[in-house]
Amino acid sequence: MVTSFNGNQEVSYSIDSELVESILEAVRQGRRNELVQLLEPLHPADIADVLEQIGSAERADLVNLWGVGFDSGVLPELDDNIAVEVVDSLPSEQLSDAVRDLESDQVVDLVEDLEPGRQEEVLNTLDEAGRAAVEKLLNYPEDSAGRLMQREFVMLPLHWTVGEAIDFLRSSNDPPDGFYHVMLVDSHIKPVGQVALGRLMSSKREVELKNISESGFMTFSAAQSQEDVAYAFKQYRLVSAPVVDETGRLIGAVTIDDAVDVLDEHATEDMHLLAGVGDESLSDHVLEIAKQRFPWLIANLATAVLASAVIAQFSATIEAVVALAVLMPIVVSMGGNAGTQSLTVAVRAIATKDLTGSNAWRVIRRESVVGLINGVVFAMIIGSVGLVWYESTTLSVVLAAAVVVTMLMAGISGILVPILLERARVDPALASGAFVTTVTDVVGFFAFLGLAYKVFLS
Amino acid sequence: MVTSFNGNQEVSYSIDSELVESILEAVRQGRRNELVQLLEPLHPADIADVLEQIGSAERADLVNLWGVGFDSGVLPELDDNIAVEVVDSLPSEQLSDAVRDLESDQVVDLVEDLEPGRQEEVLNTLDEAGRAAVEKLLNYPEDSAGRLMQREFVMLPLHWTVGEAIDFLRSSNDPPDGFYHVMLVDSHIKPVGQVALGRLMSSKREVELKNISESGFMTFSAAQSQEDVAYAFKQYRLVSAPVVDETGRLIGAVTIDDAVDVLDEHATEDMHLLAGVGDESLSDHVLEIAKQRFPWLIANLATAVLASAVIAQFSATIEAVVALAVLMPIVVSMGGNAGTQSLTVAVRAIATKDLTGSNAWRVIRRESVVGLINGVVFAMIIGSVGLVWYESTTLSVVLAAAVVVTMLMAGISGILVPILLERARVDPALASGAFVTTVTDVVGFFAFLGLAYKVFLS
Repeated sequence: MVTSFNGNQEVSYSIDSELVESILEAVRQGRRNELVQLLEPLHPADIADVLEQIGSAERADLVNLWGVGFDSGVLPELDDNIAVEVVDSLPSEQLSDAVRDLESDQVVDLVEDLEPGRQEEVLNTLDEAGRAAVEKLLNYPEDSAGRLMQREFVMLPLHWTVGEAIDFLRSSNDPPDGFYHVMLVDSHIKPVGQVALGRLMSSKREVELKNISESGFMTFSAAQSQEDVAYAFKQYRLVSAPVVDETGRLIGAVTIDDAVDVLDEHATEDMHLLAGVGDESLSDHVLEIAKQRFPWLIANLATAVLASAVIAQFSATIEAVVALAVLMPIVVSMGGNAGTQSLTVAVRAIATKDLTGSNAWRVIRRESVVGLINGVVFAMIIGSVGLVWYESTTLSVVLAAAVVVTMLMAGISGILVPILLERARVDPALASGAFVTTVTDVVGFFAFLGLAYKVFLS
Repeated sequence: MVTSFNGNQEVSYSIDSELVESILEAVRQGRRNELVQLLEPLHPADIADVLEQIGSAERADLVNLWGVGFDSGVLPELDDNIAVEVVDSLPSEQLSDAVRDLESDQVVDLVEDLEPGRQEEVLNTLDEAGRAAVEKLLNYPEDSAGRLMQREFVMLPLHWTVGEAIDFLRSSNDPPDGFYHVMLVDSHIKPVGQVALGRLMSSKREVELKNISESGFMTFSAAQSQEDVAYAFKQYRLVSAPVVDETGRLIGAVTIDDAVDVLDEHATEDMHLLAGVGDESLSDHVLEIAKQRFPWLIANLATAVLASAVIAQFSATIEAVVALAVLMPIVVSMGGNAGTQSLTVAVRAIATKDLTGSNAWRVIRRESVVGLINGVVFAMIIGSVGLVWYESTTLSVVLAAAVVVTMLMAGISGILVPILLERARVDPALASGAFVTTVTDVVGFFAFLGLAYKVFLS
């Protein structure tokens, strides 16, 4: 809920649960006026959050009751699977009204997840030109700039003057969303520059547009990945930018709000992948989620079984010195933790393009030294714990040595695995964890139990 | 490096290592013209990346050789600790020139990390008004909107018409960076609306500004946290917004590029915290990094020692059935993994405000069921592995039962811990991992070894 600022009060932008309760109460009682009154002051993005956070049946009831007044701005703000549900609950007429209010990229975002029949129904609500625009965008691959851009933008000939541009803009009366620049094109409709509106307004009428074009001007190809486009928006502080087709012709514009959505989604995705979670959202159903998490758990099981196989080789040693079974999880746990630290820093730095071929060796060296330093420090601490606990210097030295080896290998594998995966064009967020854990588990158990075998049994 | 689009070629926005090599070669040879030629086509953000990715000595040499031509746009794009180094290498005169080109928020960002002496030197390069503006901003707490905002913005009286606004803007000739809206203020300089430039340009001259003010208009307080402001920019698709002081008077503007920086930093921070890494950057020194990671490793050690203490209680059981030592890491590893999945989804959902009081119970129920489902599925798989391996039905049943219990508890603690930490106003990204691992480790070892004791020894 938007709490407007007043004085020194704390401001929260999250949904207020009491408000949600009142909304649900109004829906249960079928009181439409009350519902409309509660929703009216909310931003469409907040109404979308309310719809996402309530149950599926309540959602359908709310949309049904709201009916005619349904705010079309809510649709583009919904999670994909919730948007599908809401479209299904909306009466045809309200759906048409809502869709007609959207920009082309928003319609694309909405219909790409619908079943063909329902998709057709939504497309039919558009006029011919609108439908053609949306269908054209749907031809671009998922996650491409073509799907992200909007077809509504303002382009002007390069040779126009500021005065001509201003007169033209004055005569149009519905500027598109996210309109902050005019795009300059040559006679082949190829974008050759762009002028910020602020610059346009403060320039003299006789100045030619080409002389005030922005220096950091960039174009994107419709086939480019959304992730690359979003990265460029962040890196070069863009607010809007032209998109061209394969012939270099201007066909659309990406705006910063779309880029922010992509950046945000990718941050969530990377965080989830690092923890072994797929493309799940909070609104997914239980079975869907259990299924999504299954492959990662299977990969982890394979790693764990491999580690167990290492331990099994040393059954006789453990039988002889049972303290080994008590202490071995410490070695492996420290290794796993140190490895996760290194790999997370590496994966994030690769995603933000801070870790590249230019500094890879420096970072690898650094992580190895960090692994060694913390390995030695924790070898001393953990060795002392072992000594106090079991009063055996030999056991304590074995423990300490195993900790150094494991934490050093954790540092090295934590940085090398993501770099090598990236080189092999595998998403490092996806697979680094399993590989690094395998290394730290196997090295940890093998170093500790192997050394113990040498010292105690041979 | 900015690779401009051409045809279907793949586009990369990351620094090209060959280019970095050429730059370093030019620096080593002291060839200034060559260096300038190599840097000239680069965007300041990319030059900043080059400076971040090379060694410390090379960085100082590069800045020294570059000298007079130094692009002031590079400074705001640098990591804090690298910016300090670069400021130290810049000759006084170039530093003055560079600082004078910056907006007030950029100067603040630069000087806040400098030592007092050096800070004074930078402030002295500003004129009196500029210095006063920067000092005023420095009075706001770190990570507040006051530190994020710029003092350069355009405000107009609410009662003006479009025509008056346009004439005024035409007469100013250096619009501030990120100027996409005019802020409307009342007679007390309190912001009461804002008009997008596109809307301004396409409206008739006689229309009053207040009639075309944006509906989603929001103001922020200078004392508000940057994280809240950035969240609102993302949630409400803002591009610029006014900031007010404690009396409600307009004192600055936050722009979307600053909000994107904050969102990006927080995503990195949360990802790092989840993996037990503090506020470290790739350009930190080895000892700094080792020190930063130490507290997390200590916390992990405490957890591991606690788990070992649980195992120690069952030494006699392990001595009797050594297979327990071989199999116990599997139980704990599966629990740890399942717990990490749940807690990561929860921590991210709390950060994006998708998990709130309204849906907490639904999500807790869901995670518990997911934990139970995957627990049962993996109990069957792991039980079978145990059966094949040790040909003991009893052992296999004990193993399966322990897996169900551990994975169920992993799901429950994975969601409950972050929610409870959030309620207790502790950052869930910071502490969830240690708590959840403790639960899964202790429950895992206790369930498996305790059951085994009951079955085999009593």
